[in-house]
Amino acid sequence: MNTHISSQFDAELQSIRAQLTHMGGLVEDQLAASLKALSTKDISDVERIIKGDREVDALEVAIDDACVHVIAKRQPTAIDLRLVMAIVKVVKDLERIGDEAKKIAKTVRKIHERGVASPMLNEVDLAHLGDMVLPAVHAVLDAFVRSDAQAAADLVRQDRAIDMQFRAAVRQLVTFMMEDARTITNSLDLIFVAKSIERIGDHVKNIAEYVIYIAEGTDVRHGGIKLDIEDETEI
Amino acid sequence: MNTHISSQFDAELQSIRAQLTHMGGLVEDQLAASLKALSTKDISDVERIIKGDREVDALEVAIDDACVHVIAKRQPTAIDLRLVMAIVKVVKDLERIGDEAKKIAKTVRKIHERGVASPMLNEVDLAHLGDMVLPAVHAVLDAFVRSDAQAAADLVRQDRAIDMQFRAAVRQLVTFMMEDARTITNSLDLIFVAKSIERIGDHVKNIAEYVIYIAEGTDVRHGGIKLDIEDETEI
Repeated sequence: MNTHISSQFDAELQSIRAQLTHMGGLVEDQLAASLKALSTKDISDVERIIKGDREVDALEVAIDDACVHVIAKRQPTAIDLRLVMAIVKVVKDLERIGDEAKKIAKTVRKIHERGVASPMLNEVDLAHLGDMVLPAVHAVLDAFVRSDAQAAADLVRQDRAIDMQFRAAVRQLVTFMMEDARTITNSLDLIFVAKSIERIGDHVKNIAEYVIYIAEGTDVRHGGIKLDIEDETEI
Repeated sequence: MNTHISSQFDAELQSIRAQLTHMGGLVEDQLAASLKALSTKDISDVERIIKGDREVDALEVAIDDACVHVIAKRQPTAIDLRLVMAIVKVVKDLERIGDEAKKIAKTVRKIHERGVASPMLNEVDLAHLGDMVLPAVHAVLDAFVRSDAQAAADLVRQDRAIDMQFRAAVRQLVTFMMEDARTITNSLDLIFVAKSIERIGDHVKNIAEYVIYIAEGTDVRHGGIKLDIEDETEI
């Protein structure tokens, strides 16, 4: 690739990165708002969160299109191509985090409308779970922007702690269900919320894996790094 | 693109398509086996299903790599590039269908090991749900291979029926939970199985949307088709 084309590619990539950062910030805000609605039981933001997801979806399409265009026009190869391909995937995971945030907001509203709040369901474990995942979403986007494989590896490992916390939350909610059948409907909804948060953790792990892949890929171009990463995270 | 490069591209694309068809067949087999284990309560295939998921994962990596290579080497543009990008995405959705099949198999084994089978839990609705989703996985891969936008559009619409069936299954299982607290643990596991099947329906819908995008894209190159599709399926 000559310098001229390379600098055009860099400029376009910079613009895509800016859009990605914007999208990441938006998804973070959506998730923070839905977790706040969950813990405060205040549903005043729910409608705004549901509408906000459309902007996330539109950004997914826009960034995806921008990536296809930059590949078609600038024909990047090697690490540049892999970076653009990784952005396409990151954007998909971000869009799904946005979807889960919307689902959480809708479920909070459903529980609120049902109007049979139980003091038993204090959602302590879901707050813990949310407190683990929200900073992880921020951290993984930060790791992506800085190509920080070390931070990304920490986030991959952290997913197990999130899974454990998820299972603890489910166990607690099952106990509530068994002790008082009247809590079953709300408990099940909270289990779905916990599942959404756990899924967000999975998406963070996916993004973290792309970061590692790109960062390591710069040093080991033909090393089959991807298979190694897959193996490691398969456990 | 000159004829020489174009025919090389076509040959490589053909090879990628063959790998994709192989992966699709494997995922279908995995899902069929896990649904069979669910309905027969026979766990003899569970270990094989869990191991089989590694081959699915390896195929994801291999096809993904082949797509990146063909883009780097042949530098396809326009519809050819979009087709390769769609394959990258289809492969991700297929890999996730494989993951859900594995999860279903593991849950069937967990219920079996718990050993407290309840005659109440005859899983009628889950069989229905499985019967809707398994042919849909086959049909969407077929639609992809044939670039059949009409069949894909039917599959997008069908996802709502799957979602309704999922909700019906959850309601039935909640009724069991309320009537007999001893069924709560198994019922909850079956709700997670139902959720997995519903997710598989979502992945089928995603793949169907790529088929429509590519098929329509051949006629409407600069028409912003993707946004239209996103809007339609947002409802």
